Amino acid sequence: MNVEKYIELKDYVLARKTADLCFKDASVLLLQTGEIVKSDVAVQDGYIVGVGKYNGKKEIDCSGLFLAPGFVDSHLHFESTMSRPRELVYYASKCGTTTFIADPHEAANVSGIKGIEYILSDTEDSYGDVYIMMPSCVPAKKGEDSGAILDGKTMKSILKNDRILGLGEVMDCRAVVDCEKSMMEKLSIFQSRPKDGHALGIKEKELSAYIMSGILTDHECSSYEDAISKVRQGMYIHIREGSAAKNLTNIVEGIVKNKIDTSLFTFCTDDKHIEDIMQEGHISNNIRKSISLGMDILEAYKIASYNPSVCYGLNDIGAIAVGKKANIVLLSDLESVDIKEVYYKGKKIEDYEERENELEEALNDTVNIDWFTKDMLNLKSKKTAISLVDGELFTKKIQRVDGLGIENKAVVIERHHNKMKYHTSICFNFGIKNGAIAMSVSHDSHNVVAIGDNDDDIMKSIEELNRIHGGIVLSSKGKIFESLSLSIMGLISNQRSYVIKEKIEKMKNKAYSMGVNKNIDPFITLSFIALPVIPEIRITTNGLYSVLEDSFLD
Amino acid sequence: MNVEKYIELKDYVLARKTADLCFKDASVLLLQTGEIVKSDVAVQDGYIVGVGKYNGKKEIDCSGLFLAPGFVDSHLHFESTMSRPRELVYYASKCGTTTFIADPHEAANVSGIKGIEYILSDTEDSYGDVYIMMPSCVPAKKGEDSGAILDGKTMKSILKNDRILGLGEVMDCRAVVDCEKSMMEKLSIFQSRPKDGHALGIKEKELSAYIMSGILTDHECSSYEDAISKVRQGMYIHIREGSAAKNLTNIVEGIVKNKIDTSLFTFCTDDKHIEDIMQEGHISNNIRKSISLGMDILEAYKIASYNPSVCYGLNDIGAIAVGKKANIVLLSDLESVDIKEVYYKGKKIEDYEERENELEEALNDTVNIDWFTKDMLNLKSKKTAISLVDGELFTKKIQRVDGLGIENKAVVIERHHNKMKYHTSICFNFGIKNGAIAMSVSHDSHNVVAIGDNDDDIMKSIEELNRIHGGIVLSSKGKIFESLSLSIMGLISNQRSYVIKEKIEKMKNKAYSMGVNKNIDPFITLSFIALPVIPEIRITTNGLYSVLEDSFLD
Repeated sequence: MNVEKYIELKDYVLARKTADLCFKDASVLLLQTGEIVKSDVAVQDGYIVGVGKYNGKKEIDCSGLFLAPGFVDSHLHFESTMSRPRELVYYASKCGTTTFIADPHEAANVSGIKGIEYILSDTEDSYGDVYIMMPSCVPAKKGEDSGAILDGKTMKSILKNDRILGLGEVMDCRAVVDCEKSMMEKLSIFQSRPKDGHALGIKEKELSAYIMSGILTDHECSSYEDAISKVRQGMYIHIREGSAAKNLTNIVEGIVKNKIDTSLFTFCTDDKHIEDIMQEGHISNNIRKSISLGMDILEAYKIASYNPSVCYGLNDIGAIAVGKKANIVLLSDLESVDIKEVYYKGKKIEDYEERENELEEALNDTVNIDWFTKDMLNLKSKKTAISLVDGELFTKKIQRVDGLGIENKAVVIERHHNKMKYHTSICFNFGIKNGAIAMSVSHDSHNVVAIGDNDDDIMKSIEELNRIHGGIVLSSKGKIFESLSLSIMGLISNQRSYVIKEKIEKMKNKAYSMGVNKNIDPFITLSFIALPVIPEIRITTNGLYSVLEDSFLD
Repeated sequence: MNVEKYIELKDYVLARKTADLCFKDASVLLLQTGEIVKSDVAVQDGYIVGVGKYNGKKEIDCSGLFLAPGFVDSHLHFESTMSRPRELVYYASKCGTTTFIADPHEAANVSGIKGIEYILSDTEDSYGDVYIMMPSCVPAKKGEDSGAILDGKTMKSILKNDRILGLGEVMDCRAVVDCEKSMMEKLSIFQSRPKDGHALGIKEKELSAYIMSGILTDHECSSYEDAISKVRQGMYIHIREGSAAKNLTNIVEGIVKNKIDTSLFTFCTDDKHIEDIMQEGHISNNIRKSISLGMDILEAYKIASYNPSVCYGLNDIGAIAVGKKANIVLLSDLESVDIKEVYYKGKKIEDYEERENELEEALNDTVNIDWFTKDMLNLKSKKTAISLVDGELFTKKIQRVDGLGIENKAVVIERHHNKMKYHTSICFNFGIKNGAIAMSVSHDSHNVVAIGDNDDDIMKSIEELNRIHGGIVLSSKGKIFESLSLSIMGLISNQRSYVIKEKIEKMKNKAYSMGVNKNIDPFITLSFIALPVIPEIRITTNGLYSVLEDSFLD
């Protein structure tokens, strides 16, 4: 709280003035001492101005209720939901999460700083505090045809915004260990700020070097052994429980069994769909699961709010105490995390309020592929093909495919800068028949990808995708079956999340009925077909690429 | 660690280069996880560059030894020892304390920023890291004739020094609660930095206001009840165990009994004499006592190092992990805190190295009382006298003293700016006969104070004090019996601590033999006779002052 605010609010603390709101007779979780204390909590102008005996102009009877500080999601991406960030914040805050540490990695890959600014503006004055970790690896790999490049200079241009907290997950571990110049520049710019890690596939002494560079957190641990090895070296571990990646059970079981100090643990979701949030909760689900695995109840709540406030230096949250933001969760039961009401800066989370997208026009016009013509779907070579793998994101290389026929064609088309770059290849194990899918969500550069068994449908879907400024399009037998417009950067929809969900389900069912392999998710799998950092091979705008050999193939 | 250093040291972490020093086979205290793990610890250029399997050019066999991070004294004043700060740092670091959060309140009262700069320069490249909390209440009270005034503007002039951490103990609680302008300015300057408190005598809602203003710590708790009431509100409590104030037993007993989370507790000494440090240790003594009172062993070590690093945002200390400073304590027993060796930034603490005082001349010439003449000892009034109280710092007012005679005269003389201001008064219950004491240590403005039963001895001691540029002088029967020169600001000696100790003891014994009341310490009591913030009355350069009535007396 700054001094001006203190001068304004001081008389409420002294009870010379009556606060607007007072929670009466609550069982307050004092995570800072590990106690539950019966108390009133007075709130004025979004801040807690009294914990003790207080009155309020409006009083809420909290006898029988617990009062906890709002939870923190220590690491998440909004874009993966395809919904507006504002809407995810709403559903998550209904579940008690009032602070979000977001990495707008996808938006930045498409629209650079403007993409980050969209995330900031869409979540301003919403249902929780959204802080931004500056995406550190845009593009994901040198030479990638992303929409933007975030170099040190570009990053500096937005640093003064006080919602920019630190540097986002540093995925390029090699660049850190090898002291690559541009990475060193980024670390230097964020010297005194928190830096998130993504320490996958590096171990022992290389991991130590990565940590010594100042990278503070990691959310990629799937085992207790991995987590404890990092915490021992001073890293914070965000225990992840999202829609796809579920690491909590392994890690928490280890913590409980080994009686580990949890000061350096926090919770995150990374990627969690709104329908999953509505069904099982958000960080509330991490708390509930941890308690069910034997973690001390107050410790679980501390991991959910107090610890991340320390990790990210957010001194105005994480506890119920004077001067903290009035981010408050009222619960009828701590163990089951049975949430009755949530308050963000003293305001109760009620219904979702529709709000116009305040959007720079350019962000609605990021798919530029007019120039793509049907003849570009002709195969230049049939030597090598990509094969998808059941239930996995990695792929396999298939050689000498002449005898195997062409199951599907997949194409990647540069969509950002009219570079007229594309590549068409043969793809196995996707399985679509008499139709095609095209989409503009395609990690990390988010160029257009399309897949189909005939050129007419592929072109149809691509043309429609271009017309609707990006999204997902399913074409069948020469006709558009359905499309989801993701006109905001080709990543995010203007529509409500339930509409998105319905359309996705409809298209997914249709895709399976058209022969798509049921052991893969058609859209998620397709969205990774161009990402040149996951083995074995990928289709990129520069050609068919072998990740393991770091070379292009015929 | 900054990026340049990381690039330099990276090859040592990767074990491509062999570090200069390696602690082999130590039982390492991993306070971040609450574990003790067998490991090597490699050190290069003052930093830990490896915890695991490492070698070193020099190797220290630590089998059978525990290896812990250096301890932190979260709040101390150097000046009270009268020794050079450098020497206290030496003796404390021999006992494992390698980081010091100091408030140079006395130096600042005499010499302002130059006084602070002396503390900084004397402790540069010494035996530990000394950080400064900017004294917040200089002078202690408006109108006081201190040597300097530290207002917001003056503070800003030194803020860029990266050893200036935050704002020093805010003793003027009223100014905070009443939102006095100059205090609000100081809080504003230190908005985003830690601010130490001194919350004595304020409770409940006023305490809450004080905390809401952003004041983060308190070291004045003498009871568990006081401590827990502050921690519940989010304050850090520095558990104090010094030479005079001993609060640890009360607080730790309460913590243990009530199973309180100790995340917000740290240790401090506040004021601890070097002879006490040599005898019982420094922060090591706080750890030992806490364990003996039933605190978990690793928890006590965590309070001593990890917690203060979080409190003050000192990310490069507080744990044994790559990238942290190599501040290392080797112990043969954790419970008794049996310290074998201490390393500060990888260098073993061995013998004390004499070093010239690098001192601005002005700091050696701060006692300017040539102008004071014997006639100024004549009493202007005999209506009211000050009476000292056995074993206490507060005083009593005695009225209509004519019939009681004049036991002693006490005089306070402005010494900083030749203002020719002084006041002579009658003093009871000190008891010196046939002699006088004069000294330049006199809280908080540190003007000259003298006391005696005859004007000749009082003048003698004052003149000698002037000649030696400040210190403590004892005169007996017209002759100087002994003096201790504190020529550095009239507060600090150029001599070694054992010389200071000998001289003080010699003069103290002499004083008692001259009739001084054995229930008071002659020098400490005299040094508080002018401090206009402790009741009941005080002798100030502006006259005899009633603290309770806030008015001057005849």
